[in-house]
Amino acid sequence: MERTDGPGPHIVVIGGGFAGLTAVRRLGRLPVRVTLVDRENHHLFQPLLYQVAAAALNPSDIAYPLRAIVRGRENVRVLLAEARRVDLAARRVELDNGAVEYDWLVIATGAHHAYFGHDDWARHAPGLKTIDDALEMRRRILLAYEAAERESDPVARAAWLRFAVVGAGPTGVELAGALSEIGHQALAGDYRKADTTRVEVLLLEGRERVLPTYPESLSEKAQRQLEVLGVTVRTRAFVTALDGEGLNLGDERIEARTILWAAGVQASSLAASLGVPVDAAGRVVTEPDLSIPGHPEVFVAGDLASVPGVPGVAPAAMQAGRFVARAIEARVGGRAPGVFRYRDKGSLATIGRSAAVADFGRVRLSGFAAWLGWLLIHIYFLVGFRNRLWVMAGWTWSYLTFRRGARLITQRGRHGALPRVAG
Amino acid sequence: MERTDGPGPHIVVIGGGFAGLTAVRRLGRLPVRVTLVDRENHHLFQPLLYQVAAAALNPSDIAYPLRAIVRGRENVRVLLAEARRVDLAARRVELDNGAVEYDWLVIATGAHHAYFGHDDWARHAPGLKTIDDALEMRRRILLAYEAAERESDPVARAAWLRFAVVGAGPTGVELAGALSEIGHQALAGDYRKADTTRVEVLLLEGRERVLPTYPESLSEKAQRQLEVLGVTVRTRAFVTALDGEGLNLGDERIEARTILWAAGVQASSLAASLGVPVDAAGRVVTEPDLSIPGHPEVFVAGDLASVPGVPGVAPAAMQAGRFVARAIEARVGGRAPGVFRYRDKGSLATIGRSAAVADFGRVRLSGFAAWLGWLLIHIYFLVGFRNRLWVMAGWTWSYLTFRRGARLITQRGRHGALPRVAG
Repeated sequence: MERTDGPGPHIVVIGGGFAGLTAVRRLGRLPVRVTLVDRENHHLFQPLLYQVAAAALNPSDIAYPLRAIVRGRENVRVLLAEARRVDLAARRVELDNGAVEYDWLVIATGAHHAYFGHDDWARHAPGLKTIDDALEMRRRILLAYEAAERESDPVARAAWLRFAVVGAGPTGVELAGALSEIGHQALAGDYRKADTTRVEVLLLEGRERVLPTYPESLSEKAQRQLEVLGVTVRTRAFVTALDGEGLNLGDERIEARTILWAAGVQASSLAASLGVPVDAAGRVVTEPDLSIPGHPEVFVAGDLASVPGVPGVAPAAMQAGRFVARAIEARVGGRAPGVFRYRDKGSLATIGRSAAVADFGRVRLSGFAAWLGWLLIHIYFLVGFRNRLWVMAGWTWSYLTFRRGARLITQRGRHGALPRVAG
Repeated sequence: MERTDGPGPHIVVIGGGFAGLTAVRRLGRLPVRVTLVDRENHHLFQPLLYQVAAAALNPSDIAYPLRAIVRGRENVRVLLAEARRVDLAARRVELDNGAVEYDWLVIATGAHHAYFGHDDWARHAPGLKTIDDALEMRRRILLAYEAAERESDPVARAAWLRFAVVGAGPTGVELAGALSEIGHQALAGDYRKADTTRVEVLLLEGRERVLPTYPESLSEKAQRQLEVLGVTVRTRAFVTALDGEGLNLGDERIEARTILWAAGVQASSLAASLGVPVDAAGRVVTEPDLSIPGHPEVFVAGDLASVPGVPGVAPAAMQAGRFVARAIEARVGGRAPGVFRYRDKGSLATIGRSAAVADFGRVRLSGFAAWLGWLLIHIYFLVGFRNRLWVMAGWTWSYLTFRRGARLITQRGRHGALPRVAG
């Protein structure tokens, strides 16, 4: 017996990120049937994913099962599946194994980092999109210190203690700050041969400043705060080659055994299957109501949509999810859906344990005040994640003690050879 | 500069489990140099590993970095490496990459489950020894429910909701209890097509009763408590064949898509490289002072040692670790090390969220009192794991809410095909 059989149209939502989940929660209150398709079984609070990579948070602090989130809604079902292709004519989504038909469709599969045509770099410079990505970064960061401890050649040891972060958007800035703190504070005293306070963190940005989408004054402040933390910022720096030992910036070679990627934007490949216009990053160019040209029953929300003036951030995705749910409600009721308008409530980026920059339009903060704002806003939006207070207590604990209990290396089979031990 | 260079003999301890870590902590106080070799970077509180498999605890709740544990001891170094072979004549341990020489050696690499000669069963029936093992079990358990949700054939769906646990020692009993609670309580209401309360858990034991090393009266009580939780106990049940769809007990076929292995004991393969007598499970038959025959400078402690009357449990391993540290101290000082005597402080096994059995010699408990004792004792021994109170608070939260925030499926690339979706 399929409890999602029932009255009302069938709405399929692909993607349980900020846009898709917001749409599902709203649609679930209506007399419709909703199917949420995601290839992961959890919603991810992506703004904090770098903290999992930095071994400061557990995956379960920032990820929560989709089924548990929609548990109370009998008219919502969750399908753990990967959407492969949308057949607009047949109104059907083809999955990795099977298919599902829809009356209304919301596509919210997002975007990920991009290697500017060098997909082979992914192997040496992992990006940050999923829990598995974060655990892979964590593994590489921690293993680099283990390798430094085993290495007897000082030049090679320095290369193991040199970390390069490519891309100085919010994720790159956050990662660089966290990497510096790991060596200078969290691991200090844990090694015998490797002096972890000799860690070098390079933040490489192709454009002329860090946080290029923020106001210039905040970019400057962010750069200064990064430098206080010991991060070396290099702007107008283009990676031209990259391998397991380091990278090239034109003629300059940098030996850095650990490279983390936080650059580029590439839309989910589902967009291409729609056969509608996409922008340079592969994002769908939507109508003003976020539907796709010629198909008023299909909407695109979140990072997958290319809408002028709308940035790829969580608040924008939530606003789009809410709008799309209302638009479907309107259309089902025979009304016009209106036009999506993004309301910018400001931007925040954190840099270290007590530094951040914030841009709330007229109010611009930096330093501890911005960091506190960042903390409170993120905890406020951690809806359903065990308990917001619980996570806050965990952070406070980790902040006060710097013990980083999450500092576990798992999946050891996948790491390369560590330097030889002698003696 | 190698800070572990210095005065005093060099003691190498292989294995950072209960035996090895206890020895290292004690040896670290002496004027000696200590090297702890482990292939993982963390100590694991193994008695609670099944809770990670059952998605009730996070890995970092029960695992803690070895370096953080010995951080204050400048004369102790940690080496992330796998010991491959011991060269007794050269007093050298060969590692996966390199080697390390010793004056005194403590081997504490433990034991793991065994498939009774059917190593090919491992693929279909994972065992529980490491964090990665636990996450693999968790992944299979959670994916079985996802598969049941997608399956439209009722017979196949029942097979996805049927879990078999092979081996009814403490780990098997704990796993079976937890599996039943997952379906009956934690997941109830989360699925639409799959009725998770129809979960069937089979606990299969070759010998004549569950917990065969416990007193008979406690075995009976444990079995009754398991049955109250909905577990079907089958004793004198020998698995004769096993595949990805189910298993055979002689002529009887049981369709169970998820099989978890908790049977058999097999010593770490390092024992064989010593060329000294071993027992049937490959454990080293030691001298009364836990040294190996003909080599008073080499000791074996914990599950790797075969000592009559000493069970393979954490308290015994810790006692052996302490004894070996004292024995080395005595020998270095020119004194005789004495004889290792195990002091049995009792046994405890938990069955469900408020059921357990305990055997403290004269005092035997079962039910809630035993469970409370189990809880307090385990928290007491969670030394250094972030904070005992912290973990207890997490358990209380999880106990009260049953939300299981740790219910994440990761490493999706590794799972097999889920049933086809139609509709």
